[in-house]
Amino acid sequence: MASRAGVSVATASKALNDTGRMTEDTRQRVKAAATELGFRPNAMARGLIQKRSFTIGLLTNDTYGRFTLPVMAGISEALVDQGVSVFLCGIEDDPALGRVHLDAMLDKQVDGIIASGKRIDRRLPVDLSNLPVPVVYAFTEGHEGSVTLVSDDFQGSAEAVEHLIALGCKRIVHVTGPETFASVKERTKAYRAGIGGDGVVLYGAWSEHWGHEAVAQLWQQGETPDAIFCGNDQIARGVVDALRERGVKVPADVSVVGFDNWEIVAGQTRPPLTSVDMNLKALGREAGRLVLELAEGKPVEPGVRKLPCQLVIRESCGGNAAVTESRGGVVAAVD
Amino acid sequence: MASRAGVSVATASKALNDTGRMTEDTRQRVKAAATELGFRPNAMARGLIQKRSFTIGLLTNDTYGRFTLPVMAGISEALVDQGVSVFLCGIEDDPALGRVHLDAMLDKQVDGIIASGKRIDRRLPVDLSNLPVPVVYAFTEGHEGSVTLVSDDFQGSAEAVEHLIALGCKRIVHVTGPETFASVKERTKAYRAGIGGDGVVLYGAWSEHWGHEAVAQLWQQGETPDAIFCGNDQIARGVVDALRERGVKVPADVSVVGFDNWEIVAGQTRPPLTSVDMNLKALGREAGRLVLELAEGKPVEPGVRKLPCQLVIRESCGGNAAVTESRGGVVAAVD
Repeated sequence: MASRAGVSVATASKALNDTGRMTEDTRQRVKAAATELGFRPNAMARGLIQKRSFTIGLLTNDTYGRFTLPVMAGISEALVDQGVSVFLCGIEDDPALGRVHLDAMLDKQVDGIIASGKRIDRRLPVDLSNLPVPVVYAFTEGHEGSVTLVSDDFQGSAEAVEHLIALGCKRIVHVTGPETFASVKERTKAYRAGIGGDGVVLYGAWSEHWGHEAVAQLWQQGETPDAIFCGNDQIARGVVDALRERGVKVPADVSVVGFDNWEIVAGQTRPPLTSVDMNLKALGREAGRLVLELAEGKPVEPGVRKLPCQLVIRESCGGNAAVTESRGGVVAAVD
Repeated sequence: MASRAGVSVATASKALNDTGRMTEDTRQRVKAAATELGFRPNAMARGLIQKRSFTIGLLTNDTYGRFTLPVMAGISEALVDQGVSVFLCGIEDDPALGRVHLDAMLDKQVDGIIASGKRIDRRLPVDLSNLPVPVVYAFTEGHEGSVTLVSDDFQGSAEAVEHLIALGCKRIVHVTGPETFASVKERTKAYRAGIGGDGVVLYGAWSEHWGHEAVAQLWQQGETPDAIFCGNDQIARGVVDALRERGVKVPADVSVVGFDNWEIVAGQTRPPLTSVDMNLKALGREAGRLVLELAEGKPVEPGVRKLPCQLVIRESCGGNAAVTESRGGVVAAVD
């Protein structure tokens, strides 16, 4: 951009920052070149962040905060020692609203923006691909060439299935959410790879109700498994309750694993659920670290990074003598 | 402050805003007077908000967002038509962190601050009583003379008990959280006023586990009620599950009411819970409206305002023929 405008990088940077001495003509020429080329956030950011505002903006459409709040806690943790504050702004699914709030963040001269959401295969309803500040995506789909962090659904699910196999389970089925979710596809793929076959996969809603219904279907068909790997904790809670009501013992007769490690659900299930934790706080810490590096002009390789999940052991699977440490690590829950 | 500095209100305002023409000496005299007198937020705000930044800061120590996110949704709803954005900053329970993040908000020249928390009888770990911008407290304890909004625990609980009485329940007991919470005291007071006596009140944890235990205690003592009013939805869910496991039918034998109307708990209980909703979104809307009025220099009466709760009817209480509309309104849940 500097060369397109026929000036040095330093001058271009000053022109865009409205600082430094130069003719108004030069400043306008640089700005025109910048507009023409489209702001490339990382390159721009490398040159431009001179006046740090020590604020990072977090944009999300996850209005329940189920996923975004742990991500935010991680970002804060990563940045607080540097005196950097994180401001969260909720944009729902409304593009106009998204633009208003994004502009407000840019007006406040945040040093960078982290985008987060409620699923990894959907974009926020606002275009973040040409901003004058660096952007990192954490638990939402990024634009092409962006720095994007997601949890590794395949690895997390593989851990869960390996855990069940290590416990001696032979007939593991998978009860999960709607087939259209990328995370459902990944988890199903890992389940099939783990058991070495097609297995039994039941798709439904992300609800306790579906857990009850799935157990009814399985027992009606006479396909009684010795383990049920569930796509989330709510389904798993429904499964556990339905089994108890049929007189099937968890974990003596059937082992159950959930996904999300959402304390309010996993911890309150009877028995408490063994579950896959997406480590969203760690993902937030990494997002915070990376957005600061970009803001400081350090190079960060673009692309999608998958961060490991962790299996958290509670009481819904059989004896844990055979449990082995694996890639993401296996930990026992401290309730 | 203007008179203390010997200048007009308009000049004082300009001096503090670093705008307007005046000698450096005058500007410093006004600033010294402001410091000496302590910034009184409302009075100051009345004079000072000329350069609007169209941003409101929301400070909270509710890191799970259980209470703060609905409040934030309400604030956004109230402000979006005015082009005002809300930025949330989580401060945990750490005073140093609170100060860093508060300063970041003030640096960004927010037009006002709303403070929120996880209980109404605790203050945030940061002093907001002398800020240069207006402050409104929503679901957290405010400083003396502040504008504070809380939900009306007494009225909400009274609605719940009246509902049970209207359904013909004669032996209503109250199973609730730790006695030290102001909300527990208010809810208990309303329960006693409603039944016209001391009644049976069992205090415990805010958990499903305590709901199970409370039912065990009641049935062990032979004090079998025909209705249980619970201090929150988690307790109520434990109560409903424990009753089902004893073969006691809800609502045929015992009616159960929860508190919070937390969809993930109330909606998933079998049968779904009738519950008191604190209307936190409405509380947020009111907080947003008031902080803008203050920012625009309009007078707002200080003090604690209690906003009505609303009873949301699901299926955990007997036939609803006798239900009457009352102060906060009774609504049927749409699941």
